Amino acid sequence: MTGPADTPADENESAHPVTGLDDVVHQRVRLGILTIAHEARRVEFGYLRTQLELTAGNLSQHLSVLETAGLVEIEKGYAGRRGRTWITLTAAGNAALAEEIARLKLLITRVETANGQ
Amino acid sequence: MTGPADTPADENESAHPVTGLDDVVHQRVRLGILTIAHEARRVEFGYLRTQLELTAGNLSQHLSVLETAGLVEIEKGYAGRRGRTWITLTAAGNAALAEEIARLKLLITRVETANGQ
Repeated sequence: MTGPADTPADENESAHPVTGLDDVVHQRVRLGILTIAHEARRVEFGYLRTQLELTAGNLSQHLSVLETAGLVEIEKGYAGRRGRTWITLTAAGNAALAEEIARLKLLITRVETANGQ
Repeated sequence: MTGPADTPADENESAHPVTGLDDVVHQRVRLGILTIAHEARRVEFGYLRTQLELTAGNLSQHLSVLETAGLVEIEKGYAGRRGRTWITLTAAGNAALAEEIARLKLLITRVETANGQ
């Protein structure tokens, strides 16, 4: 059974765009991690830390949240003798980022429509 | 003294767009409050609560954060004998929302540029 044709659950016009945002993805630092991981095939921990101006502990915490949600994969390895941690966006992470961007666009449209009134 | 001309602090190209997002504004619920308050001259507490699907306690907490930051004004009054709380966006709140939207657009452009590669 699907809902009535005039009230599709996912595009309910009475619901505000932010109600559909996922805090796991929307949170500022995690949105940054997902965006950077989306730009490269895989990114190194130190690079993320520099780009996002974070402490290692703070970045680790946010990566754990994303890994638990299945949005990134974390892989430990070596560059010569030095330990390195690599982060890769999963297919679910890619989809979640696309969903976030789509909802942000709806939000921006609402704000800019109000500006024009 | 200002910084070197080739490294303007506010538009440093090496900084990721999310580093410039303000958590006070970017947080999902508060972004919703500011967006709705931006659309109307003033909004009633119960309307915000329904639109954003929040408990009264949760909404109150987020409104306090915004009020402390000077982004909204909160006014208590009456509609007949019933107490009502009204929320108005301040000029600073309007500017903060505009800044957030501008940074989100930069972020969206980055994600979509990566998609096109």
